[in-house]
Formats: sequence, structure tokens, C-alpha cells
Amino acid sequence: MRALRRLRQWGITLPGLSPGKLNAITDVEGVGVGHCSLVAGDSIRTGVTAILPHFGNLFEEKVPAAVEVINGFGKAVGISQIKELGELETPIILTNTLSVGTALDALVEYKLERNPEIGRKLPTVNGFVAECNDGWLNDIRARQVKGEHVRAALAAASRGLPPEGSVGAGTGMSSFGCKGGIGTSSRVSGEYTLGVLVLSNFGLWPQLKIAGIPVGMLLPHPGKAVETEKGSIVIIVATDAPLDSRQLGRIAKRAGFGLARTGSVAGHGSGDFVLAFSTGGKQQEISPDRLAASRLRDDKLGPLFAATVEATEEAILNALFTAGSMLGRDGNFRPALPVADILNILTKYCPLHIEEE
Amino acid sequence: MRALRRLRQWGITLPGLSPGKLNAITDVEGVGVGHCSLVAGDSIRTGVTAILPHFGNLFEEKVPAAVEVINGFGKAVGISQIKELGELETPIILTNTLSVGTALDALVEYKLERNPEIGRKLPTVNGFVAECNDGWLNDIRARQVKGEHVRAALAAASRGLPPEGSVGAGTGMSSFGCKGGIGTSSRVSGEYTLGVLVLSNFGLWPQLKIAGIPVGMLLPHPGKAVETEKGSIVIIVATDAPLDSRQLGRIAKRAGFGLARTGSVAGHGSGDFVLAFSTGGKQQEISPDRLAASRLRDDKLGPLFAATVEATEEAILNALFTAGSMLGRDGNFRPALPVADILNILTKYCPLHIEEE
Amino acid sequence: MRALRRLRQWGITLPGLSPGKLNAITDVEGVGVGHCSLVAGDSIRTGVTAILPHFGNLFEEKVPAAVEVINGFGKAVGISQIKELGELETPIILTNTLSVGTALDALVEYKLERNPEIGRKLPTVNGFVAECNDGWLNDIRARQVKGEHVRAALAAASRGLPPEGSVGAGTGMSSFGCKGGIGTSSRVSGEYTLGVLVLSNFGLWPQLKIAGIPVGMLLPHPGKAVETEKGSIVIIVATDAPLDSRQLGRIAKRAGFGLARTGSVAGHGSGDFVLAFSTGGKQQEISPDRLAASRLRDDKLGPLFAATVEATEEAILNALFTAGSMLGRDGNFRPALPVADILNILTKYCPLHIEEE
Amino acid sequence: MRALRRLRQWGITLPGLSPGKLNAITDVEGVGVGHCSLVAGDSIRTGVTAILPHFGNLFEEKVPAAVEVINGFGKAVGISQIKELGELETPIILTNTLSVGTALDALVEYKLERNPEIGRKLPTVNGFVAECNDGWLNDIRARQVKGEHVRAALAAASRGLPPEGSVGAGTGMSSFGCKGGIGTSSRVSGEYTLGVLVLSNFGLWPQLKIAGIPVGMLLPHPGKAVETEKGSIVIIVATDAPLDSRQLGRIAKRAGFGLARTGSVAGHGSGDFVLAFSTGGKQQEISPDRLAASRLRDDKLGPLFAATVEATEEAILNALFTAGSMLGRDGNFRPALPVADILNILTKYCPLHIEEE
Repeated sequence: MRALRRLRQWGITLPGLSPGKLNAITDVEGVGVGHCSLVAGDSIRTGVTAILPHFGNLFEEKVPAAVEVINGFGKAVGISQIKELGELETPIILTNTLSVGTALDALVEYKLERNPEIGRKLPTVNGFVAECNDGWLNDIRARQVKGEHVRAALAAASRGLPPEGSVGAGTGMSSFGCKGGIGTSSRVSGEYTLGVLVLSNFGLWPQLKIAGIPVGMLLPHPGKAVETEKGSIVIIVATDAPLDSRQLGRIAKRAGFGLARTGSVAGHGSGDFVLAFSTGGKQQEISPDRLAASRLRDDKLGPLFAATVEATEEAILNALFTAGSMLGRDGNFRPALPVADILNILTKYCPLHIEEE
Repeated sequence: MRALRRLRQWGITLPGLSPGKLNAITDVEGVGVGHCSLVAGDSIRTGVTAILPHFGNLFEEKVPAAVEVINGFGKAVGISQIKELGELETPIILTNTLSVGTALDALVEYKLERNPEIGRKLPTVNGFVAECNDGWLNDIRARQVKGEHVRAALAAASRGLPPEGSVGAGTGMSSFGCKGGIGTSSRVSGEYTLGVLVLSNFGLWPQLKIAGIPVGMLLPHPGKAVETEKGSIVIIVATDAPLDSRQLGRIAKRAGFGLARTGSVAGHGSGDFVLAFSTGGKQQEISPDRLAASRLRDDKLGPLFAATVEATEEAILNALFTAGSMLGRDGNFRPALPVADILNILTKYCPLHIEEE
Repeated sequence: MRALRRLRQWGITLPGLSPGKLNAITDVEGVGVGHCSLVAGDSIRTGVTAILPHFGNLFEEKVPAAVEVINGFGKAVGISQIKELGELETPIILTNTLSVGTALDALVEYKLERNPEIGRKLPTVNGFVAECNDGWLNDIRARQVKGEHVRAALAAASRGLPPEGSVGAGTGMSSFGCKGGIGTSSRVSGEYTLGVLVLSNFGLWPQLKIAGIPVGMLLPHPGKAVETEKGSIVIIVATDAPLDSRQLGRIAKRAGFGLARTGSVAGHGSGDFVLAFSTGGKQQEISPDRLAASRLRDDKLGPLFAATVEATEEAILNALFTAGSMLGRDGNFRPALPVADILNILTKYCPLHIEEE
Repeated sequence: MRALRRLRQWGITLPGLSPGKLNAITDVEGVGVGHCSLVAGDSIRTGVTAILPHFGNLFEEKVPAAVEVINGFGKAVGISQIKELGELETPIILTNTLSVGTALDALVEYKLERNPEIGRKLPTVNGFVAECNDGWLNDIRARQVKGEHVRAALAAASRGLPPEGSVGAGTGMSSFGCKGGIGTSSRVSGEYTLGVLVLSNFGLWPQLKIAGIPVGMLLPHPGKAVETEKGSIVIIVATDAPLDSRQLGRIAKRAGFGLARTGSVAGHGSGDFVLAFSTGGKQQEISPDRLAASRLRDDKLGPLFAATVEATEEAILNALFTAGSMLGRDGNFRPALPVADILNILTKYCPLHIEEE
């Protein structure tokens, strides 16, 4: 078995726009990602991932943002205020389902430390935390994620290609009955870059499609397949295109189209949430009462819609390709994606873009 | 050129659930479809399609319904009341964009005739009309759709396999730069049937995927490709599964996933609307104040979600496969799908389900 | 009986901000209102009202807009596209429930005439039409509103104080079991003006509150009271404050608070719709791809929220005070508000702002 | 100064429906309320309130529920899943803004203890926690609410009239520049009861209306008035009427109309959230796949809409009338409502329902 590689490192290129330099959400200037992974004993397989829209003080320099709830069977927090005000004022925290409260608590504490006026002159802070359920491999009832792990993920945030696969919040996640986790990808359209990071924990094996090829129908599952969708996915979309929150809502909606390309039908038990933000929509105070901003014309959004769909598809596949097999709680096991068999299939059937190594 | 055939008539079978007997929305017991096509001179290429949830008096026996707006750049009417009350009380009318007012007017008149108490004891009626823009082939500014055409479509409604392709509201529609129009498909899951009918008028050629294969990237467009998405799609989902309006909203949302499988990114200019209704959610008056109804458990919705995705994908492809080339307004032309070339591609690359004729 | 007067002409001043010069939606610079009333024989009591955000070409100079559906039991059309794109591109048309199709048709025709490129280079136009049900006084089944009446209302649009009461779309409307119709009011907050126009056709007599005083509980109904809410209200909010569509959505939501002040509980059968637009949010093309605009800070919206609530309350009361009694269909009768009795009540109980004539 | 009394204990009766026996949310059979108040030293003035839809295992017997976000500038968690699935599966927890994470964490722990299969066979649990900001009187940055206080509130839950005013989550809250907190009220309509409990922390003094009388305009504020709306309100509506989640959404929307009657304009900085649930919509499993339930006809909702509006108004006033003055953080002070002066005003101006003691 060769080392874990990303999709394109196997010579598989999805049709469409070109990725950015890193093919990652961090191709969007200013965005940082940090992980804190918890792997302990037989049964702790979990963690935290932090995404920073920028490294400045987000509470002072909020970014336009929007949320799309594809399937609301999930516990993400912070959505109402983002919808009302159209902006994000904290880093994004991803973790396991039963640790959302802990993570929110830690995120609030983190913001209070950095902003002494919150709870005084400035009333409150709205944290965004989203989750998937890693309870198959992780003893999620043990609730081992603590505030210090959230802080560690925040402190670890950096530019550069973020680690993918079984790392951070993705540590114990599963996808299509295989090991899932964190994946990222990006696309460049003209002067703009759009990047996606996913926490991927959804899907049934027979549904899996790679580059449109129904791999899950053509290959047997490499282990014990999952029968019922109880998963979830969180999709974070970042762009430097100047977009306001309404437009970001349109972008966020297209992430579901990328999800669909991988074979998902957004199963009943799958909490599928998208957050999109823009680092390019900076506002200027032109008077004490007024802000000025520029934004892309809506009829120029087409390539960014395509970028969202494509980068979401590839980020999900990257999560699958970069996650090694894992043994966890009660002897539960998730195999890695059977890459060799998949490459055989793709070489045979995928009409485009399979290069020899 | 062989005669126009539906996808499965070419031996192409999409993976997943099996279709109903007709592979059409009319597999759902009670549902009827009628068309009125207007083709006149060089430039009139338009029409009306009517879908009847049942052949009884819908105003007296309303059906649970829900609407999902995938991309709201469209003119569908009747949505607010369906959202508020969760039910549909008229047949569904599809037509061209600039004829929505006329069609609504005719639909109201039709209901008034059948229900003398509307506007008296019973205050009003809420018609549902949706549209796509056939202005490339049709002289849409001429607004040739009249009330009589709406009536003709309603009168033509019948069970059985509805005509597809360039018929009814689909007469002048385009899709992926080829001729589009009406398509339908269905899926059976256990005791339930779910059918989809689309008015397909969206897509750019390079985006086109058939059974996951990026046909639009592999083949040159058979004519003059369209550059910008100005299309639309209306997706009607019918099922006999007993679902309430909240659940139908979940179903409607999955139609977008079927749309995504064909390559769509829900372009800016594309008004993409879904209406889902159930004929199986019949309510009983158990007292003057109370209604009783049964509904499927939400955790049993999975196969219906899959059915929605699959039938939407296939309905869109059926629209493409059954629409012949057409010359229209100002010499504008839309070629039929280059079926022979596509079959070659699919035979080579599609790993499943291509049968010899 | 003295001539019909507006609320403040009776010396009744609601607490809060001050109205603009006309105390009307037309205090917002550029806004015009036109009516076409249809009163014929014993049973035709209906009409059309047009509101123009400005007198230029709205299709070329769209205005930011938002819709709030308070209770969706209504037939307003054009909402989906306003939600998606955040802008209004046609005049607003108000009419009776069963004439929405006709009005939409006429509005589309009106736009086609003024914009030859619609349906050609520019694909479509999204008309906004809203309605109430005047079927008590008007033979609504006769559907006497024709395209020419829509055109007449549009042609009649002018600045200045719009006629109120039983005029235009308000001709046959009822409110609180009395005669209702068109009312308008405005408020000034700093440099900004906000105006409201309502088509008022809702409410049960016992619910009526004027300046907070439960008049409907203190006075007998002046005629035959209505038992069940089958009404509706359309509320149009205009402002010159620079607001984007998200902010206008927040404004629109507050109109419901003004409605509540008059005693409404947004009854089941009442279709309550709000459209808010801004004439002050003008965008500049700063490049082929980008628009620039300034907007008010969200934390400066407070006075505009108050202005919306107050002007909505007063516009509804103005509709009641300015509508004379009317005899209509089948001998149905709506009395005018019993102003003399109400003034007695208010003089006794209303602690503020009753001035001697 | 006489002891703190509820509105009706002063002889003030709002027009409309009659309250239940306790005039409290606990008039709805099965509903329990518990408080845990934290008052310590000069600056801790906060707490937790728990509302139990019933005393059984909510995770096994979920209740139909819906959420309405009036103004989303708040941090309530658990909304997305309630919207998707239409049901509530945990008690409701109210606390201060910066303690939402802690409270969610404690609520999850509480559910895990009672349901060993969560995180194993049953994947997750969705807690609902809402908040207001008590940071004027409470040192909210100290974050003194701990899991034990959430447990204490849950353990204290009981039937009977819940304590009101400065208690539980209401301990440190302010309203209209006076002391606010917890209030409750109910209405009976035919065979159904509807109760409301509010956590009231909103409003500017000049806006205050009691029984429609603009008290805040007629009386000087009894202390130092607040200038800007930074408050919030959480409104919990319970009913034993058999309603599904769509209908409860309609109910929840009407709570805003009750809020409006007290003078609120839903200020920018006010996070105004409503949760409505029904204890009467019990479902029966009629097969492994199907649930049966009865529900009220929508056209019978009118009295429940009125009940919601009236009970919300009175619950807010009860919170004001039962909260004594309080000194808190940094010497900040909130006076009690100036009841004697208000009674004078109401005796003079309120036309109805003032009884002599």
C-alpha cells in the first residue's frame, strides 16, 4: 500500500476550473486552519478543527457570511445571528456532536480574553460551532474534548496546506463506510479564489461516486458496510471575491451540488450544514452612520458557483483519499478507501484526466 | 438518425431503485398530465402543461404539498400559500415566463367555474403556475399563450405515459444548448411510488453529465453552444407515500441533488423551482375541529430521498433524449442531443447498464 | 356627519416620531402613487393601485427590496426573485385577489413596451403584484379588472398626497367590519424619511385598537360585525435611507409590529404581506464586474424600525378614517368607522395628543 | 411600597380570553418549570430556568415544536433540528448569553445519563438553549453559571405557578429600563389551554405600553433610562391543542404580536426568539413505518392565535410587575416598575378592567 495521497496526487483530475496553488481553503489569502487531534487508548478518536477567516481581530473586523442548512438534523450553533446580521465574528470551530457546548464555551472564553469590552460596552459575541458524529470510532459519550483542545486548534491555525484525513475534528469520522475526516480543495476563477474545507462524515458505500463513476456499485465495500445514514457533513466555503451575505447565501447553496456529485442524497440522519464567508467584501466607514462596500455583480457569480460545486466535490474526495484505516471504540473499524481498486476502475472508466504516476 | 427514444430505450440504466411501470410521474396512482403545444409559423414555439394530482375536485380534496426554491430567479406563483398551509388546491400549470399572468388568470377562471362558492362563502383560490423561458426559439414577446390553451392542457390531462420532449410547456425549451422540454421518470421503493416530471430549460453544454460521464467535456457541442446560463427548470415530484408538508419539503430539497447529477450548478440566471405533493396523505375529519392523518416516519424517508434524486436525474435526461432538433424565432436553432455519439461514449466509459439494442 | 378626515385631522397624534410633510409614502423623494377605481352598478367595487419607487426606468434602475410574509394565506406574486436577487424591477401593483393574473399580465406587457430587449437580450421581467379580497362588497367572481385599469393606475401615478380610503385597490375593501381601503403615513428620522402605504382589508371589530385604546371593546359595531377573519393586508414600505435587501428584510419584519398595534392577531385567513424598498441605496458601477454602494450601519436602524411600526399603525388608521360607508354586492354594506363615538372615547381615555378642533 | 404582585392582582385585566387557573404556562397539563437563581456578592445576578414539556422521557416522547426568530441577534441553539424534524426532544433551558455553551453541555450530559443509547445506537441529542444578556446587573464575563445550576433548575421543575420576576434566568434581566425577568400567563379557548413563559430583557422606557396606554410617555423613568436597545426576549409557548410543527410555527409567529403590544419595535440589538410546542399532538405508531396523529383544522386556529398574543403581552407585564429593584455589578441599578404611578395612570386612562382592590 502506497502512502496516503490526495486525489490529484493519484493523477485524477476533475473537469472544470483549476485549483489554487495549494488546492486548499488556505489558498484564500488570510485564511488559516488549525487542528487538535485526540487519540487515546482504544476508544478516544476525536478532535477539534479551527478555521480563521483572517488572523486579525474578527470581532473588530467581521466578515460577510451566510449559512445554508441542507439537512438540519444537526447541532451547529451561531446560525441565527449570522442570518440576521450577515456576518461572522469568531473563528469557526468544528468538533464532535456531543462537544458543541464545550466548544462554544471555549470559543466564547477565547473571545472574551481578546475583547475586554464584550459583556461590558459591547454586549455579546456570537460563536459558530458545527459538528459531525464520530460515535462509531470514538467513545463520544466520554466527551473528551475540553476547552484546552479548542484553544490548541486555534493556536495551531496556520496558512499552508492543512493536514487532511483523520485529523482534528476529522479524527474519528467516517464516510461512505470508510474512514472520512477533513478534506480541502480550491478553485481559481479570474482574479478570485474560492476554497472549501469539509468535515466529511456521511454517505453509504453503494452511493459513492468518484468523478461521476459509481465506484460504490462497482466495487465491494472493503469492510463492513453501514446500512443507514447517520452521518453529517460540514462544508466551509471561503472566497476573496467581494460578496455580501445575500450572495454568500447563493454560494453556500451550491455546496450542496458538490455534495450531490459524490453520491449523497442528504440522508435523513445527516446534518448537512454550509457556512460561506468572504474576505474580499471589506467595508469602509464613510461616515459615523454609513458603510461603503463593493460587491461582485450577481451575473458574474457563475464561475464562483461552479468553483463551489467543484471544490466541494474534490474536498470530500480528498478527505476520503487521505484518511487511513482506523480501529476505535469497542473494536469498531473503518477501512481506508480501497485506493488501488478505485484507481483500476477509474483508469478503465473515467474518460478524462487519469495520468500515469 | 433513429427515432427519438427515452434513456432506457437506448439500454442505459442508471444505478439505484427500479422505475415504475411507465417510468413516469403517472405511475403515481391518480396523477394526470396534459399538454397543449403551440407551434405556428417561424416563431411560435411554446405551450402549456398541466399536472393534476388527482382527477377529483382538488379544491375540496387538497393534497399536502411543499415548495423548494433552489434558485429564485423565476416567476412561479402560488408559493406563499403552499408554504403557509402546506397544501395544493389547484392543478399545476407550466408555461413560458411571460405567460404566467395569463395562465394564472385561466387557472382561476377554471376553478371558479368548478367551485361556485369561491369568492362567496369560500373566499379565494391559490393557483400554482411555474415557468421557464423559451425565448430563444419562441417569440416570447408575442405572448401567444391564451386561456384556451391552459384549458386545453387541463382537458387533455390523462393517465398513461405523458408525451415528452418538445411538447406542452416544453415545446420551445432548451437544455445544455440542445433541445430540451418535458421529461419524466419514476422510482418504486417498497410499497411506495415516486414520480418526477420536469420542464427542463437549463444548462451549458460543457456541464452535461450523463450517468456521471462528463459527456459535455468529451464531445463537441452539436451546434452553437450557449455561453451564459439564462435557463430554468421546474421539477414536479409526486408520491403516494403518506407525507405531510414538512416531509414533502425535505423531499423537494433532494430534487436539487438530482439536478446536480446532470452537471447543473444552478446558474445565476436559472430559476429552479421544485413542487412536491403527496396523494397518500389523505386526512380524515374526525370531528368538526380535527383532522387525522398518518404519515411515514422520518427515519423511513431515505429510499424516497434516493428515489427523488434518481427520478429527477432521469427525467431531465429523458427530456433531452426525447426532444428533436428545432428551428424557431429569427432562425434560431437547437439541435437534438447527439445521441449516437453519446452512446459511443457511454458504451466506452459507463461501467454499468449499457445493454445492446 | 363631518367630511372624512385623516387621523391627525381629528387632532389625534400617535406618540413617537414626526411625520413627513404629507404624512404619506410620497414623502419619500421620487415615490409615486396612482389609483384606478372601478365602481359600477350594484356590485362592482374594486380597482387597482400602483406604487412607483421612482419615475425612471425601474428595469434599468432597480431598487433594493425585501418581502416579509407575515401570514402566507395570500396570492402575491414576484416574491421568489426579490428574495433571490434583493431587488425590485417593476412598479408595485395592488388589486383584488382574483385579478392577480390579469394584473401581472398587464404589468408584464407594460414592461415589455418600455423595454424592447426583454425576452430578447434580457430574458425576463419579474412583476410584483399583491392583493386583498374585496368579495364582500365587490362581485369578485365577475373579475372586472382589466389590463387597461392597471395601465390607468400606472398612468395616474403622481407625487403629492395619494387619495386614501375607498379608492384604487381599496375601493371595495373592509377592515374591522367597517369600510377599509388605502391608507398612508410617514415618519422622519434625522435625514431619512420612511413612508408606508397599506391596502387594508383585515380585522374583526372587537379587536380594533386606536392609539392603544380598545375601541372595539368599548363601542358596539356600527353595523353587522364580521365573525371570522378572511381579510388581508398589504403593506408597502418605502425609505430613502440607504439600505440593502437584508436590512430591508429587517424593516419589513417590523411592519408586523405596527399591524399588531391596531389589534390584529394576523388571523388564519388573512394574507399579510410586506414589501419594503429603498430609493437611497443607489449602486455605482465601479468596474464591469463590481458595484459599490453605501448602506446604513445596522446599529443605526433603530429609529427606522420605530418609524416602520408607527407609520404602519397610522396608515391603517388613515385607511379606516378616510373610507366612507359603502353598499355593494347583494346589498352587502360596510359602515364607515363611527368617528364621532370614537373621538368621544379617545378624548376620554387617550392620555395624549387629542387636540380640540 | 406594597409587595410585588402580578398584573391581575392589581385589578388590571387585559381584554380578551380568560386565563387558566394559574394564569401560567403550567396551566398546560404536564408542563413544569424550575429555576436556579445565582445571587452572590455585589456582582453575580444570574441563573437558569428550565421548562419541561412533560415529566416523562422527552427523548422517547418528543413533542411537536417550532421556532420563530423575530430578530436573530441572539445565540439560541438547537433551532436547525427543530425546523427540520418539527420536534423537541429535551427540556428547554434559559440562561445568560455567555453561558449558552455551558448550559448546552450540561443539558447534553443530563440527557446522556437518562438515555444510555444516545451516542451508541441512537446517535445524538438536540438540546434547545436560549438566552438574554444580563450583563448590566450581572458580571456576565465571570460566567458563574455551571452545569450544577442547570441540573438544579431541571431538578426544581414542578407544576404549580412558577416564581416570576428576578428568578432563575430572569435574576439579572432588565426590561424597559426597569427590572425584568421571568413572567408567565395563559389563556383558555374552548377545550384548549395555551400558556406563555417569557424571559424578558428588552425595551426602552419611552416605548412601554400597558394595556395600550403609553405609560412610558406619560411617566418619567424611575431611574436612569437606557438609551439603546441591547436586550432580548425569549418567549416559550405551550399548548395542549393538537398541533403539528407547521401550525406551531404559525402560533410562534403570533407571539411577536403580543410583544408589539407592549411597545417593542424589536430593536436591532434585541435577540427575540420564540419556541412553541404542543403536548396535545401525540402520535401513535400504527405500523413500523407509520405514525398517526390528529390535529386541529387550520381554520380553527384563530382563538389560539389570539391566546398567544394576549398571553405573551401579559407574561411580559407580569415579569415587569413581579421584579423588584436590584443593585448589581459596579453599582448598576435597575428600579422596579413604578407601580403606584402606573396604577394612577391606568385608573385614569385605561377604559376597562381596573378593579378596586
